[in-house]
Amino acid sequence: MGETVATVAMIEYADATPEIRAVYDDIMRVRKSDWVNNFWKVLANHPPTLKRTWDSVKEVMAPGTLDPLTKELIYIAVSASNGCEYCVRSHSFNARAKGMTPAMHGELMAVVGMANETNALANFYQVDVDDAFMTP
Amino acid sequence: MGETVATVAMIEYADATPEIRAVYDDIMRVRKSDWVNNFWKVLANHPPTLKRTWDSVKEVMAPGTLDPLTKELIYIAVSASNGCEYCVRSHSFNARAKGMTPAMHGELMAVVGMANETNALANFYQVDVDDAFMTP
Amino acid sequence: MGETVATVAMIEYADATPEIRAVYDDIMRVRKSDWVNNFWKVLANHPPTLKRTWDSVKEVMAPGTLDPLTKELIYIAVSASNGCEYCVRSHSFNARAKGMTPAMHGELMAVVGMANETNALANFYQVDVDDAFMTP
Amino acid sequence: MGETVATVAMIEYADATPEIRAVYDDIMRVRKSDWVNNFWKVLANHPPTLKRTWDSVKEVMAPGTLDPLTKELIYIAVSASNGCEYCVRSHSFNARAKGMTPAMHGELMAVVGMANETNALANFYQVDVDDAFMTP
Amino acid sequence: MGETVATVAMIEYADATPEIRAVYDDIMRVRKSDWVNNFWKVLANHPPTLKRTWDSVKEVMAPGTLDPLTKELIYIAVSASNGCEYCVRSHSFNARAKGMTPAMHGELMAVVGMANETNALANFYQVDVDDAFMTP
Amino acid sequence: MGETVATVAMIEYADATPEIRAVYDDIMRVRKSDWVNNFWKVLANHPPTLKRTWDSVKEVMAPGTLDPLTKELIYIAVSASNGCEYCVRSHSFNARAKGMTPAMHGELMAVVGMANETNALANFYQVDVDDAFMTP
Repeated sequence: MGETVATVAMIEYADATPEIRAVYDDIMRVRKSDWVNNFWKVLANHPPTLKRTWDSVKEVMAPGTLDPLTKELIYIAVSASNGCEYCVRSHSFNARAKGMTPAMHGELMAVVGMANETNALANFYQVDVDDAFMTP
Repeated sequence: MGETVATVAMIEYADATPEIRAVYDDIMRVRKSDWVNNFWKVLANHPPTLKRTWDSVKEVMAPGTLDPLTKELIYIAVSASNGCEYCVRSHSFNARAKGMTPAMHGELMAVVGMANETNALANFYQVDVDDAFMTP
Repeated sequence: MGETVATVAMIEYADATPEIRAVYDDIMRVRKSDWVNNFWKVLANHPPTLKRTWDSVKEVMAPGTLDPLTKELIYIAVSASNGCEYCVRSHSFNARAKGMTPAMHGELMAVVGMANETNALANFYQVDVDDAFMTP
Repeated sequence: MGETVATVAMIEYADATPEIRAVYDDIMRVRKSDWVNNFWKVLANHPPTLKRTWDSVKEVMAPGTLDPLTKELIYIAVSASNGCEYCVRSHSFNARAKGMTPAMHGELMAVVGMANETNALANFYQVDVDDAFMTP
Repeated sequence: MGETVATVAMIEYADATPEIRAVYDDIMRVRKSDWVNNFWKVLANHPPTLKRTWDSVKEVMAPGTLDPLTKELIYIAVSASNGCEYCVRSHSFNARAKGMTPAMHGELMAVVGMANETNALANFYQVDVDDAFMTP
Repeated sequence: MGETVATVAMIEYADATPEIRAVYDDIMRVRKSDWVNNFWKVLANHPPTLKRTWDSVKEVMAPGTLDPLTKELIYIAVSASNGCEYCVRSHSFNARAKGMTPAMHGELMAVVGMANETNALANFYQVDVDDAFMTP
């Protein structure tokens, strides 16, 4: 198994069970990639969560009415707001691979910063929700 | 001044100073709207923050390499992750006005949910960042 | 016991055990007040936590090198960032009682908003900590 | 004092005042351990907080209607959701020492991930609380 | 469809498509219940997320090496830390149904409070992780 | 450009455009400093956000009814609650430069810890807000 500073060992392909390898193979097939990133090698310590999480990510991030790049931008926005270093770095990598330009990266940052600021301001004063915003 | 359950009173247009009215007027002009939502009426308790925040929001949410609808989607994503009711409701309203369909709303939810889940998973195991993700 | 929408009943003074009443009495004595707010009536469902939490709050919020009003401002700042409505409202009430003016309230809001924004920006780009900041 | 990257120095046993040593001794006695972890050496910069925090942790984590291992699992769950690396690592260490198996660790992760996802989903749509859930 | 204050309408059983009804039926079957709570009626606005989320929750919350009550306690702990009202209320309801006593509820609260406090303390001083905690 | 582990390159003064240099010069002038910290060198990847954020920070952190040191303490409190390492370290540095003593640092920590604990407790039981706290 791979050396790691994670709180569990990483399961490398060579050491993986057929059940785990099937997920790794699907990750590489869908991503047209020849490697699996550490997130999955760590989740592999609990095979049902590995499989369920990958199946969910694959479904959720597939092209739909929102394109894959927009979905990556949203992922970065949430991850930065939550302060998750791994997720910020991996999804920034993905977003660049899917066409995020430096200008888009900068505008995304601006929106994320402003949203976190105004979220705090609304909570600070406990602003009443306007009636107009209550209609579904 | 308006009745409110916020922790400060709301400053209505009729009661506002010229400095505050100038901001309210600009909000209605930019939004092609004839009303100002409660968030600004509450911020008006501190005029420098009212003006600075509005100027910032106006600049950040203007069309750029990301279109205004995409920016609203990102705003909802951050606000839901932070649990800010006011912001979720107001930006969902804005997003519908800018063309967010129910299908887009549903896909956005799916990405936001998945991002919050995998953020927690990465933090749970303290996954090592892959070298490939460390290159700017 | 009092009616409540909390997930447990509130323990009113009339229904309280001597152990709980001793804490309620101390709260009113320290605060020079003739009532106990709901937070404590709900915590009273677990008397050891009621006593420990009150003893801790009493110690932490007492005058020190930071004055009591500054401590209330810090409490509001944390509570707004965490989106805790009860805490924002109760500590805004406390802060006004201890002399927070509207101008101070407004400036506090401005700092809280900006801190939440720049926290998100620093996480967004995963900014390297400067060597100068690493010295204790 | 010990070298550190924390924002304050660590107070080692050899340099500690009798007041601080009394806490360190109690930590080692309760934990049947011959060392004190960094968290306490850093808190020792403010002796009242060192003592109060240790007394509280000792009381809260003692066996009760919830067993010590369950309490450690809850601690990990909160720490992962908050993204606190130190707390995730130290309580994962504690939990293993108290009998957490890899299977339990994996199931805990699955619940933590799912809870963070559905928390975000509920906030995303601002779901109405069912009447049945409002009864204490 | 049901009246709601959520940002989307609730899909009642009578108005649901066969695809949605199949999920609702499974929820009631697994829970031995004759009603479906609002969370699912709102998620039904995006049927793929309804189905995926339910399937995941069903798998994750099933008995394993952690019993169902322990899993509910963990769910409450995360939800309280994230400030999600809906989730706190619904999982407190579930936990009571699965045998959570008032004493367990109180001890759970104590651990959740202490974990959130020490998470903040560790971040406040940026405490160095002890070598002993770095071994997986 | 400077080497970095951030997700974008740092823009050093020597490589900066006149627009960026004008902000760097203003930062050094206001702070009476001869260097610019990494946060700004990274924000410089999106010049409008660099300028807007600096102008906002300069305005918000200037002396007012709250003194500059109090504002730094609030900044640290928010940053620790959000788990932002960069912000905790940089504002702890600033606060020391503005006169924060170790005793003040310790008391600040105590308040931040307690606020995060009671925020979680209030959310845990979903405590009803007292009528007295609802008056603005």
